[in-house]
Amino acid sequence: MVNWNKKCAKRTNLMTRSSIREILKLTQRPEIISFAGGLPAPELFPVERIKSAAAKVLDEHGTEALQYGASEGVTMLRDFIAERMSRRGVNVTRDNILVVGGAQQGIDLIGRVLLNDGDGLVVEDPTYMGMLQAWRPYNPCCYTVPTDHDGLDLDVLRRILREKPKLLYLVPNFQNPQGITLSAERRRGLIELLHEFDGIVIEDNPYGELRYSGDDIPNLYEYDAAYQGTNMLDGRVIYLGTFSKVLAPGVRIGWIAAPLDIMDKLVQAKQAADLHTSPLTQWIVAEVARDGFLDEHIKRLREVYESRRDLMLASMEAYFPRDIHWTKPDGGLFLMAHAPEHLDMTELFKIAVEHQVAYVPGADFYVGGAAAGGHTFRLNFSNARPAMIQEGIRRLGAMLEEVLTRQPV
Amino acid sequence: MVNWNKKCAKRTNLMTRSSIREILKLTQRPEIISFAGGLPAPELFPVERIKSAAAKVLDEHGTEALQYGASEGVTMLRDFIAERMSRRGVNVTRDNILVVGGAQQGIDLIGRVLLNDGDGLVVEDPTYMGMLQAWRPYNPCCYTVPTDHDGLDLDVLRRILREKPKLLYLVPNFQNPQGITLSAERRRGLIELLHEFDGIVIEDNPYGELRYSGDDIPNLYEYDAAYQGTNMLDGRVIYLGTFSKVLAPGVRIGWIAAPLDIMDKLVQAKQAADLHTSPLTQWIVAEVARDGFLDEHIKRLREVYESRRDLMLASMEAYFPRDIHWTKPDGGLFLMAHAPEHLDMTELFKIAVEHQVAYVPGADFYVGGAAAGGHTFRLNFSNARPAMIQEGIRRLGAMLEEVLTRQPV
Repeated sequence: MVNWNKKCAKRTNLMTRSSIREILKLTQRPEIISFAGGLPAPELFPVERIKSAAAKVLDEHGTEALQYGASEGVTMLRDFIAERMSRRGVNVTRDNILVVGGAQQGIDLIGRVLLNDGDGLVVEDPTYMGMLQAWRPYNPCCYTVPTDHDGLDLDVLRRILREKPKLLYLVPNFQNPQGITLSAERRRGLIELLHEFDGIVIEDNPYGELRYSGDDIPNLYEYDAAYQGTNMLDGRVIYLGTFSKVLAPGVRIGWIAAPLDIMDKLVQAKQAADLHTSPLTQWIVAEVARDGFLDEHIKRLREVYESRRDLMLASMEAYFPRDIHWTKPDGGLFLMAHAPEHLDMTELFKIAVEHQVAYVPGADFYVGGAAAGGHTFRLNFSNARPAMIQEGIRRLGAMLEEVLTRQPV
Repeated sequence: MVNWNKKCAKRTNLMTRSSIREILKLTQRPEIISFAGGLPAPELFPVERIKSAAAKVLDEHGTEALQYGASEGVTMLRDFIAERMSRRGVNVTRDNILVVGGAQQGIDLIGRVLLNDGDGLVVEDPTYMGMLQAWRPYNPCCYTVPTDHDGLDLDVLRRILREKPKLLYLVPNFQNPQGITLSAERRRGLIELLHEFDGIVIEDNPYGELRYSGDDIPNLYEYDAAYQGTNMLDGRVIYLGTFSKVLAPGVRIGWIAAPLDIMDKLVQAKQAADLHTSPLTQWIVAEVARDGFLDEHIKRLREVYESRRDLMLASMEAYFPRDIHWTKPDGGLFLMAHAPEHLDMTELFKIAVEHQVAYVPGADFYVGGAAAGGHTFRLNFSNARPAMIQEGIRRLGAMLEEVLTRQPV
């Protein structure tokens, strides 16, 4: 018999299964109302438009869409992305764009190209667990920055930047898991700090176009260009975008927008990883999104998700015990709730499932794990239909009430 | 300005651009007849069947195909693959199968999970350059095994295995770049050696079903099961398969078939890399391949590619100077030619392009680079239509003739 454990690389011991993806398997029973996944509403997928786009692409570009293609991606799609990213005046070009298999692959490739063993990595706490999962095998040294309603604390960040960390990773808009947004003032301050300390930031922005209240805030790459007095993407920001939340996750199309000086190495990492992303799905996305369809579709998503967010917040007000507190996001798919510290939300997950409702325990979003965030949990408000949101929050409230009255504080 | 070179990880210095992919860009001018790419014949893509499959999948499973899915892959496709791999009696199950974004991603994930800095890696010389590109950043110590018409030299392999290398990587059928096949006897001998020395092998088999002459030979995982007297995939072989060469590369669907004991870590690596492969393209492939279509389609590919192989070999006989020698593959997409050692085929590539014909210089397929294989070149016979094969080989023969008469031997 082969002892596979002994054959594994050291980095493999740092790999973990995604707790969310394991939880999702538990919550697929139809009687369970799940707020666990980061799933868009499937009834809003533009299935018919995708179907005609697929037929048109195969009719008109079949052999090209089915053959090997360029590692950088399909030209028409890269141009579409570059143009969208240039809307507020920064001149993003096709050459800045590398198409990848969802933003998760973008995270993976960036880590591969930039992270040495022991490099300093600055993250919000809590942060996106998929990034932790991708980068932990590179064994970075994590610095966590606490956050409030306006995003990360710049005073703490300044102290950390003196230690010369390799990079920052941020989800500035409607962050996963908290749903909070980095304020305009702090974006400006952050960019100044990066220039002062020769820092760089990964701006992961899957939810930016899903805003339901408050004013739009420019992206970090736009603040960076403004600070430098240039209109190029040529500074301290590598940007990650995706069609997963605004079109459909199943196409697995995301992108990296990066300064030209690092693009060559990212393309090499992409070639080694999988040669290139499917030209078929790239062509389909470009065909679906064109002629203003994507913008119209996003308007519709905003309307639906806004009402689901509002309904979830109102239901929480109505059904949650007084000791539970939560964020009130202006957009995105998630909010995060805090129970009293003695509650272990990972432990309580089983009881929630008995109550036929599911959430994601917060622990894995914290660099410090359960000790830091064991009493928190993330709720998704985009996936469940309105009646389910109300009923699911009622069930969750009843469960929490039960547990809080039973246990001594 | 950011000094991105200084920001890069050490492993990034070990990354290289694929010379093939760079060459492909040069050879897209219509006047050039290219034998450079590893491209299937685009006129044989089953475009209409893929189109109806896409429509059916979106009609019947639209929301599922467009939503996030399981990291392991779509059940229907995993079952299809497992059943095909079980045809000769080894009972491969769904749980042995991880769907990946082309076999290249399979290579990447396996390296990530198994290779430590400095680990011994045994390869044929020459070997698949995409593997070298993916694994060089892990800084393995390469052992090369020379090959003859029957594949790698087992006496040399035995001496190498005493050094306890981490793994072997092989393309046993119609190897890229040489087109040679590991004989049945040596497969048996190889498996015995692996058991004697506690070795493992990655069996990369993109071309196995594209045999045009000679008898089918069982796969290494089948010899391994027979040696162990089991009918399970539970031994010393991790297998890589792909639909790229038998259906279409643009769907980017491949798979890893592995013993269950290492599957968990491979799935974790897949989650970190890109969560999962597109369920849309997975569903489409499963729908296209079903009801015996894939087997019928492969028969058609075999007929066409066999005649192209024969035509290329006959044209080489007719047009190539006497000092050029080449392999005569029983299948696959490639053959490899050897010029006299003083010819630098990388240097001559520019002259070939002036003659409006292209090949891939062999140097990058050799671990030792130009010093070992500078005088070799790879030719693809699947992509160009018959008239082009004849004319392209004529041009290449004329160029070689010219160069050989000009230069002193």
